[in-house]
Amino acid sequence: MEKITSRNNPKIKYACSLKNDRSSAFVLAEGLRLCEDAARNQVAIESCFVSEKMAQSAACASILQASAQCYEITDAVCDKLADTKNPQGIFCICKKPQALSEVEPAGKYLLLENVRDPGNFGTMLRTAEAFGLSGMIACGCCDPFGAKAMRASMGAVFRFPVIEAENELVFLQEAKRKGMSLYCSVIDSDAADVATLAGKSGMITAVGNEANGLSEEILALGTPVTIPMAGRAESFNASQAATVLMYEMSK
Amino acid sequence: MEKITSRNNPKIKYACSLKNDRSSAFVLAEGLRLCEDAARNQVAIESCFVSEKMAQSAACASILQASAQCYEITDAVCDKLADTKNPQGIFCICKKPQALSEVEPAGKYLLLENVRDPGNFGTMLRTAEAFGLSGMIACGCCDPFGAKAMRASMGAVFRFPVIEAENELVFLQEAKRKGMSLYCSVIDSDAADVATLAGKSGMITAVGNEANGLSEEILALGTPVTIPMAGRAESFNASQAATVLMYEMSK
Repeated sequence: MEKITSRNNPKIKYACSLKNDRSSAFVLAEGLRLCEDAARNQVAIESCFVSEKMAQSAACASILQASAQCYEITDAVCDKLADTKNPQGIFCICKKPQALSEVEPAGKYLLLENVRDPGNFGTMLRTAEAFGLSGMIACGCCDPFGAKAMRASMGAVFRFPVIEAENELVFLQEAKRKGMSLYCSVIDSDAADVATLAGKSGMITAVGNEANGLSEEILALGTPVTIPMAGRAESFNASQAATVLMYEMSK
Repeated sequence: MEKITSRNNPKIKYACSLKNDRSSAFVLAEGLRLCEDAARNQVAIESCFVSEKMAQSAACASILQASAQCYEITDAVCDKLADTKNPQGIFCICKKPQALSEVEPAGKYLLLENVRDPGNFGTMLRTAEAFGLSGMIACGCCDPFGAKAMRASMGAVFRFPVIEAENELVFLQEAKRKGMSLYCSVIDSDAADVATLAGKSGMITAVGNEANGLSEEILALGTPVTIPMAGRAESFNASQAATVLMYEMSK
C-alpha cells in the first residue's frame, strides 16, 4: 500500500477540500461504521486512507477491498483528515448516490424545511429509512453529506433517497398536480390529528425548523396536522415530532 | 446588588462545586431560558448571579425577583461558572424538586435503563411531559440535573417527576404487586405491536440504552413490545423509539 506522510500531499488536500464542498459529487466519510456502510451498499469508493494501526486490523479488510485506491497515512495526516477528536484512522472518498429530482406519485415522503441542525437532520433520515418511507425532501436544510449529519444518519445517507428541492413551492405544486397530498405539521389543537396520516399513500408531510415552524407559503399549500399534547405547552423537538408523523405515515 | 469580582469567592466555589455533585439538593442552572423556567415553576432559587450586562437587561427581572439572593459578577467569574462557550451571563442555584420514590398505580411511566447520553435523556424527559405521562423512572442513567440534560429537557426537569430507582428489580416487582403492567421495548418482529400500549393505564414502559437494549432481568419481568419497521434492519435511536412508545401510551 502506498504511504502518504505529508499533510500537504495533493490527495490529502483534495480529501480535506471535500469537507466543505457541498457541490462536489464526492464526499469524505470518516470512521469504520460509515466506511463499512459505504462498502456494503455498493457506494463507489474512490480512495481509502488508513492509519498504520488500522491497516493491520481485520476490520478494514472489506473496505480496502471495495476501494479503487488505498493509502496508508501517518498519524499527523490522519489528524488533518479527521473531523472527530479521536479518529479511528479510516477515511474513504465516496461517490455520493445520485440525488433524485422527482417524487414517485404513490410514495410517502417527509419534507424538511430549513432544518439546519445536522444531528436532527441525520436522525430524521435514519428514522425515515427505518419506517420504510420512499424518501426525504430537503428544502434549505443543512448538507446531508456534512460529517455530523452522515454520522447521525448511521449510514442511511448512502441508502435512502434525498431530494434537494431548490424551489420548494414549484416542487410542491408539481407534486400536487400529480395527485399527491401535502400535510403540514403544526402546533394547533384545532388541526387534524396526526392519526389521519395512517393508511394513506401518495403523500408528503412537511416539518419546519424548530424555532420558526413551517413558512406561510408551505402552510398555504397543505392540510395542517398536529400531535395531540397533554402536557404543558412545550412543543416537541422537531425530530421527535417528525418521528410521530412518520410512525403514523408508516401504518 | 453585591458585586463578586473574585473567581475564588466562596459563593462562586460553592456554585461550581454543584456542577459535579449529583447528591446535592441544589443545582446550578445556566442561561435565561432555564433560569426563567425555574422562576416560573416555583422552584426555590437560593442565589442568582448575573453579569453586569445581564443585570441591565429587563429579561432577568423576574428571575432576580424570585431569587433569595442576587449578585453581580465580572466576566471572569461568569466564565468560571459557565458550562457553555458563550454564556448569557445568568446563573441560579436552584433547589431540586423533591424526587418521588413511588409510582401512582394508575399512572403511565417511561422507565429508562442505563441511558447515559444527557441529550437523549433530556429530550425524553421533555417529550414525556409533552405527552402528559405521569413521570419518568431512571435506573442507572446520567444525572437528570447535569447541565446538558437540563438544557435538552427545556426546563421539564423542574416540572416533571423523575424517580431514581436504586434497585430497579425491587422497584418493578413492587409496582407489579400494585397491579401495574410492565412493557419492554425490544427489536423483535414477533413481539406485540406498540399500538397495544394505547388506551391502557397503570403501566410502565421500559427502554434500554442504545448499544445494549434492556437487561435480561428487566426483560424477564415484562411483556415485549416492538415498533414495526419497514426499512432496513437499522434500529431507531433510543429517543426516537421512546417517542413512539409514549405517543401510543398517551392515546
